This record gives sequence, C-alpha cells and structure tokens, in this order.
Amino acid sequence: MSLIEDLKWRHAVKAYDPEQKVSQEDIDKIVEAARLAPTSSGLQPFKVLVVENQTLKEELAKGALNPECMRECSHVLIFAAWDRYTAERIDQVYDYTTDERDLPRGRFGSYTDKLKSIYLNEAAERNFAHTARQTYIALGLALAQAAELRVDSTPAEGFDNRIVDEVLGLEKLGLKSVSLMYIGVADSSRDWISTMKKVRVSKEDFVVEYK
Amino acid sequence: MSLIEDLKWRHAVKAYDPEQKVSQEDIDKIVEAARLAPTSSGLQPFKVLVVENQTLKEELAKGALNPECMRECSHVLIFAAWDRYTAERIDQVYDYTTDERDLPRGRFGSYTDKLKSIYLNEAAERNFAHTARQTYIALGLALAQAAELRVDSTPAEGFDNRIVDEVLGLEKLGLKSVSLMYIGVADSSRDWISTMKKVRVSKEDFVVEYK
Repeated sequence: MSLIEDLKWRHAVKAYDPEQKVSQEDIDKIVEAARLAPTSSGLQPFKVLVVENQTLKEELAKGALNPECMRECSHVLIFAAWDRYTAERIDQVYDYTTDERDLPRGRFGSYTDKLKSIYLNEAAERNFAHTARQTYIALGLALAQAAELRVDSTPAEGFDNRIVDEVLGLEKLGLKSVSLMYIGVADSSRDWISTMKKVRVSKEDFVVEYK
Repeated sequence: MSLIEDLKWRHAVKAYDPEQKVSQEDIDKIVEAARLAPTSSGLQPFKVLVVENQTLKEELAKGALNPECMRECSHVLIFAAWDRYTAERIDQVYDYTTDERDLPRGRFGSYTDKLKSIYLNEAAERNFAHTARQTYIALGLALAQAAELRVDSTPAEGFDNRIVDEVLGLEKLGLKSVSLMYIGVADSSRDWISTMKKVRVSKEDFVVEYK
C-alpha cells in the first residue's frame, strides 16, 4: 500500500449505512494522524471534536447541508480552530514543548516574542483566517488515514457554523468550527458517486515546472 | 510502514545539503499526492509550481524568510491558489469531469449554478480565502508523501508573497502564492532541530469526545 493508492481509493461518500459502526481503534488512528499534522510554528491552533453520540448528531444535523450523512454516519469529526491567538496560548504550547525536550522554558523566547508581535497586533478575524488554514492540513491527513484503513469518509465545509458552534459550545472553548469529516460505512445503494470515475485535473494543467 | 509512522518520522528540516538532489521520480510522486488531494466541490482551485532552476531559486530567495533553504534545497514547491472563482473556471473543471465520465456536459448544472451563485457574488478576497484553504489539504498530503519516501522537506508560510508572485508571474496566471515546500536532503550538521524530540499537544488536550 502507498499513500497514492490510498488517495485513489477514497472518495467523498454520499450516504452511510446507519447500522454499521467504525471501531474505536480506527477512529483513534484517524485522530492521531490529525494530531501529528504539521502546523505553522508548531502551534496546533485547533482541536478535533469527535461526536458519536446520536442525540448530539441529531442536533448537529440541523446545521448540516447533508443532514442524512450526519445522522447516519458512525462518527463525525469537527475541526475547530482557535478564535484568536493569545500570549497564553502561545506560551502554553512552547512551555509544553520545552518541558518535553528537557529544555529551559523560554528557550524559544525570541521566536515566541516574534510570533506574539505579529499575531497579537492583528484583528481576531485575521488570526482566525490563519488558524483555520492549519486545520486543513490535519483534515487532509485524517482523510488519508481513513483511506489507509479502508474506512469510508466525507470531508464537508458546507454547514451552518453558528449552529454547530452553538450545539458544541465552542465559543466557551475559544474555538470556531471550520470543517467536518463524516466517518462510517458507505451505503453503496445510495452512495451514487461510488460508481463514477474519480477525476482530477491532468498533471499538465496542475503543475508548472521550472527546471 | 504506515501514515502515522511516516508523520512521526518527518520534521521541518532547517538546512539542506546543496550538493544533493532528489530524484524526479520522487518529486513526481510528491506532486501526484497533491494532485489527488480532495478539494471543496472538487474544484482543485490551485496549481503547484515546481522550481528546480537555481537562478530562479536565487530570485525567490529574496522573498524567503529562510533564504538558505530556498537556495540549498533540491526543489521547491509553491502552492498557488486561484485569485478568484469565475464561471469559466468552474465550468472548465465540470466539463472536464463530465467528459472523463462519459456524461453529458451540464449533468451537474444545478450544482455548478449553485456554486456560481455563491462564489461569483463574493469579493475576490473572500474567494481567495476559500481557495487558499484548499491548498493546505494538498500541502499536508505532499508532506506525507515525501515522508513515505523518506525524503526531507520543510513547509513554509513565512515569505514575501509579493516577491514570489512577481518572480513567478503568478498574476498573469490568475494565481496567488500561499505556501512553499522545500524538498531536498537535510544537512544534518546544520539541521539543529533534527536531534530534538518531536512534540505534539497531548491527545487529552487535542481531542474532545462525545460518546
């Protein structure tokens, strides 16, 4: 197996079998790939919320563009980014990092000072534009991990963020939802896209090479 | 090997050996992983520019926060997103998709009409915020592919976009640079981070589970 084979295998599933669940072991691996994702300055400015609870999925379905996927999938992951950078958040990450490396706290002080001088002088909205981007690295790796496990999934941006944020109480956590990932077992009879050829722009149209 | 092992193996390399090159075969696989990345509505609203040319790398180094990486790496990938959505761009992708699937053009017309009614009524800046996000999925998968090949790499957002856009003539292509990825062979004597423990936020702090 290879990443390229995994990516060719996967597609955005359109309908799930509500009777089938994905194992906790597989969910843990998918979340682990997201946790290992590289992020800007290593800040990992987001969390992943994993919802298996059916009552909560019914609530979230009210804000979903594809409510049936929400109701019928096994688990849904919500990628939720920091609403803004703060000195405390930056220090917490770097204090943890130096502790883990047996280095004195403040070892990267000149770097974190630089980060603070940039981010803390920006509007929260601009901070969030940056934190939200980072979540897509993790989303991509979570989708790749699901594919490696031959677990069906669907990435989704189309949903009502306000409803999702409210249902999950994200504001209190200083987070805002960015994307969703449905995980489950496809219902092949209703997953209409599964029989269609996977199409990507040709290499000629995708790449520009400067040798 | 597994994606998780690959992600644990990789780190953001800080210095490259200018005498060593990465094979075209490996570069092609890294670009292929980016090409296979899922994107919103399958629009793939970006290109990847692959620069091996040393003169061009010297020019790009003027806009790089880590100019030595730019000069000394083997290849640099630039992820450049559509500056805005247009009806022509959306139609081109969907016409190609239906052609590839032996379906009549317009088969997804109600869907593309919906996309156009959303995107074409937004400011270019808002369009770009969305296209730029998509590039991070591809960046993540390209980094994972390099890791699978045990090829060293560095993701980078910190650079002067105006210089990079101008050097590569991106405006004429309707593109704006978003991120870079240096690829090469690490110079272990100067890659100071390579001996440090890889640190990620703990699972407890990263995940919220609703069972």
